[in-house]
Amino acid sequence: MNLDALREATRSQMPEKRWKHTLGVVETAIALANRYGGDPAKAELGALLHDYSKAWAIDRMEAIIREHGLHGELLIHDKELWHAHVGAWAVQSEHGVTDVEVLDAIRYHTSGRENMTKLDKIVCLADYIEPGRDYPGVSKIRELAEHSMEKALVRAFDSTIEVLMERGKRIFPLTVLARNDLIIQYK
Amino acid sequence: MNLDALREATRSQMPEKRWKHTLGVVETAIALANRYGGDPAKAELGALLHDYSKAWAIDRMEAIIREHGLHGELLIHDKELWHAHVGAWAVQSEHGVTDVEVLDAIRYHTSGRENMTKLDKIVCLADYIEPGRDYPGVSKIRELAEHSMEKALVRAFDSTIEVLMERGKRIFPLTVLARNDLIIQYK
Repeated sequence: MNLDALREATRSQMPEKRWKHTLGVVETAIALANRYGGDPAKAELGALLHDYSKAWAIDRMEAIIREHGLHGELLIHDKELWHAHVGAWAVQSEHGVTDVEVLDAIRYHTSGRENMTKLDKIVCLADYIEPGRDYPGVSKIRELAEHSMEKALVRAFDSTIEVLMERGKRIFPLTVLARNDLIIQYK
Repeated sequence: MNLDALREATRSQMPEKRWKHTLGVVETAIALANRYGGDPAKAELGALLHDYSKAWAIDRMEAIIREHGLHGELLIHDKELWHAHVGAWAVQSEHGVTDVEVLDAIRYHTSGRENMTKLDKIVCLADYIEPGRDYPGVSKIRELAEHSMEKALVRAFDSTIEVLMERGKRIFPLTVLARNDLIIQYK
């Protein structure tokens, strides 16, 4: 499937606001790839598809997770994380996307993981700082992203962990592993 | 070894300030055991010994961790966690303490762990709220401890995670697993 067709297929999965966010992530991911020696084409594809299943019904996502055994612990964790794994599965099975790096960048764009690839970092960070994002601390994360994806991502994960703690919700262990690993990388 | 001898042995490992803290933890742990149906004698012993190795030199702790393979990942994590594992080893090997529950409560009093036992919770929480403790949020944790050790511990772990994030330090994954598990327990 060519990029234009994928673009239309993705747009049709989500409301206009989410699509606008997606375009912001695409723009930012390409810029990060250029800044940090990543592959702009893969960055564009991963960013375009990162929220493919974000607007899907919870029941639909749960059925897919169960049927395809997507991630052992996923069902007991926050539903916020489901769309990333379901999205990676969906673009592979529905649109024949086979690039493992791109699929992983989609799969881990919300949680992060240990040993994040450059593409993982690009898509994850772009999702945090695309121009439409507005939350406490985003300007500091954008500033850090000018010089270090690792430092920017640690700050970004911190903001997510803070929100989860404030709400009394569980913290996804992968995010902590990702954060700890990034700190080792820049220390 | 009887309790009086253990008390003197413990006191001799640490400066006066740490000993005063230890007595506060003992008092609080016994109160928590009485409040929540725990074993006051085990609570007293675990609390008395929880910081047995806290004042030991880093080199001495590192040598013991390496020599006895105390915990695979311990050396790459914050030194703040070492004394708990080293302390459990020390009271077992130097003073013949063999009660597994007590040794675990010492070993996990700083990090917590998944499936914390009642004694784990008592010693860990007492360490956070003994009367000598004074840090932002401690009064809220004491208040929660009147009614739920689980809610109090989640708040206590949150305060630790916040401090680690502020300082740009790694978060011990066991603490996140402990916190997530406690949330499931009271939800």
